[in-house]
Amino acid sequence: MTNLETSMATIIEVFQKYSEREGDRHKLKKSELKELLNDELPELMTHVKDQASLDSLMESLDTDGDAECDFQEFMTFIAMVTVCCHEFFVHEDE
Amino acid sequence: MTNLETSMATIIEVFQKYSEREGDRHKLKKSELKELLNDELPELMTHVKDQASLDSLMESLDTDGDAECDFQEFMTFIAMVTVCCHEFFVHEDE
Repeated sequence: MTNLETSMATIIEVFQKYSEREGDRHKLKKSELKELLNDELPELMTHVKDQASLDSLMESLDTDGDAECDFQEFMTFIAMVTVCCHEFFVHEDE
Repeated sequence: MTNLETSMATIIEVFQKYSEREGDRHKLKKSELKELLNDELPELMTHVKDQASLDSLMESLDTDGDAECDFQEFMTFIAMVTVCCHEFFVHEDE
């Protein structure tokens, strides 16, 4: 696999590692999302300090309103964060 | 860095490796996109065999109509492909 293919597979694997812990195996409940973010995106989580911020993040991710985060919602979030990181590096560069 | 953070950084690096080759350093022109897809997503490209398919892919990615693919447009495409791969694995699994 190329590096890009491996990266895409890793995003799927990380989601599944947490989503299959409890309840619906293909969706993240709030506790699973919290564990994923704390363990896998620790740098980002330094900005999400309180429960209210996490609740509001979960709400904004959960576009279909079922109180869980499915893979499509998760991928949209990862894409958004990656675009923000890219913009940061581009501006650093200028 | 965690595996998820490394994956996000790899997506940015792969985009930049091709976007900085010619013209606008932060956008992929059609030839750069073609090289990126051929080299980094060879499996996917077995389904994009002719120039017409590539033209139509480029058009669908280029949401702002400037005939180039910026990082946000590229990330949307990668997210879409990753969601399709995830759905494939979930259905395999059932």
